[in-house]
Amino acid sequence: MTTLIAIGGAASFEEPIIFEEFIKRAGGAKARIVILPQASGQKGTGAKYVRDFQKLGVKQKPISLEFRERPKADDSRHIKAIREATGIFIAGGTQMRLAFIIGGTKLEDELHNAYKRGSVISGTSAGAAILSKVMLSYGSGGATPRERIAQFSQGFGFTDKIVFDQHFRQRDRIGRLAYAATAHPGLLGVGVDENTAAIVEDDLRISVLGKSAVTIVDGKNAIASNIAEVTNFRPIAVSGLTIHVLTPGCTYDMIKRKAHIPPLKLE
Amino acid sequence: MTTLIAIGGAASFEEPIIFEEFIKRAGGAKARIVILPQASGQKGTGAKYVRDFQKLGVKQKPISLEFRERPKADDSRHIKAIREATGIFIAGGTQMRLAFIIGGTKLEDELHNAYKRGSVISGTSAGAAILSKVMLSYGSGGATPRERIAQFSQGFGFTDKIVFDQHFRQRDRIGRLAYAATAHPGLLGVGVDENTAAIVEDDLRISVLGKSAVTIVDGKNAIASNIAEVTNFRPIAVSGLTIHVLTPGCTYDMIKRKAHIPPLKLE
Repeated sequence: MTTLIAIGGAASFEEPIIFEEFIKRAGGAKARIVILPQASGQKGTGAKYVRDFQKLGVKQKPISLEFRERPKADDSRHIKAIREATGIFIAGGTQMRLAFIIGGTKLEDELHNAYKRGSVISGTSAGAAILSKVMLSYGSGGATPRERIAQFSQGFGFTDKIVFDQHFRQRDRIGRLAYAATAHPGLLGVGVDENTAAIVEDDLRISVLGKSAVTIVDGKNAIASNIAEVTNFRPIAVSGLTIHVLTPGCTYDMIKRKAHIPPLKLE
Repeated sequence: MTTLIAIGGAASFEEPIIFEEFIKRAGGAKARIVILPQASGQKGTGAKYVRDFQKLGVKQKPISLEFRERPKADDSRHIKAIREATGIFIAGGTQMRLAFIIGGTKLEDELHNAYKRGSVISGTSAGAAILSKVMLSYGSGGATPRERIAQFSQGFGFTDKIVFDQHFRQRDRIGRLAYAATAHPGLLGVGVDENTAAIVEDDLRISVLGKSAVTIVDGKNAIASNIAEVTNFRPIAVSGLTIHVLTPGCTYDMIKRKAHIPPLKLE
């Protein structure tokens, strides 16, 4: 099974249900975890995740690939670490750093191999953005979709059916996700709140874990839009977007494009 | 063999070498040509191409899919026309219209089927932009790459190894193509001048036809960039981009990432 765990940022190590799920799916105490800290502009990011994962019971010391220069990506130690990984965690920061430093390298190919053989791939914030092929790289907040409210470039692309957004409710990003779904009506916009995760299995199913919600915006059945005509950051019109707000315990079928919300259990 | 013919706009019907090549590859006089006019804001665009292709000797009257509304994309007549096409021509205009009206529809799936079975797919201007998976959707001119000088969204994506640009020399787009290659170092930026075509065979080889040049910007061996740090449309630094300027008769090997420029023939 392939597994992506897209975290909307600010995941808690105090009540670590998301990290525990990541570790469990990566093999529990026997997990071999590799951390990609490239998005972060802070030196200590990788080392902190190493310690935090150890505190949660991972026996084999996680490896943080500590480089920030593109020519170092394909170092044989980095390739070896990814080949042996059962879980890969991508830290937050600025997603364009990941795209420039790792995009198009052999290390990126190895990440895809790891994903295909069943390594669990998780990322938070910028690390969640980079998981999809169409990546939200820049954008503004606000509830109304506007011309060029969001910009896209290419992420690692473990899924080409989704475009992820993060810090979703906290930064009021429904407008830019609606724009993303209108610009890419064949994709699912998946907006993940902070301290919340969207778990994508086999590129078929999404489930929700954590404190808040995952919002799905689907443009597949969109009817009309003036997205190609509007200029100067003015609001765009669109009709026929489908929206699902999913809380923990809910699931979503990416083929049928239908959500399952657990029914009320009568006492 | 799969074939894409990306035209940089303003292709001539007076000296129609590009259109003749398209028709030849689509079966010559027996070609069954379908036109997608959706990018254009003008009513007569499709009908004009129908007449122009007939003048160039195509016996079976080309079919222009005359709709501009997303819910009409999957009309059975449209699907049937694409199933029978040996050549598909995508007119210019605004690429986001194509993305919204056809992206994610069954018609788009049929276009991919047509491409895979050997239908020649050609587009001019916006119709060239939509051919690649990463699509240049908006941008500014100028020789210097700047933060957000270009914006991307997803095209039909017959190739996921290239990002096309068009009107290349005429609109001074080397800065935005360098930006595109820096943001996507795994892709080839392919900038096509007006009345010039980049012909992509089997997603392996590029050849050049027409009046001017095709410029290839390759970020694969880029060494360093501050693309993730720069703000406010300021110039970005990048080192290690590889550039090839190819004129008619030149070819490019997308695997070896090497150009072949025919040597001088001594008299």
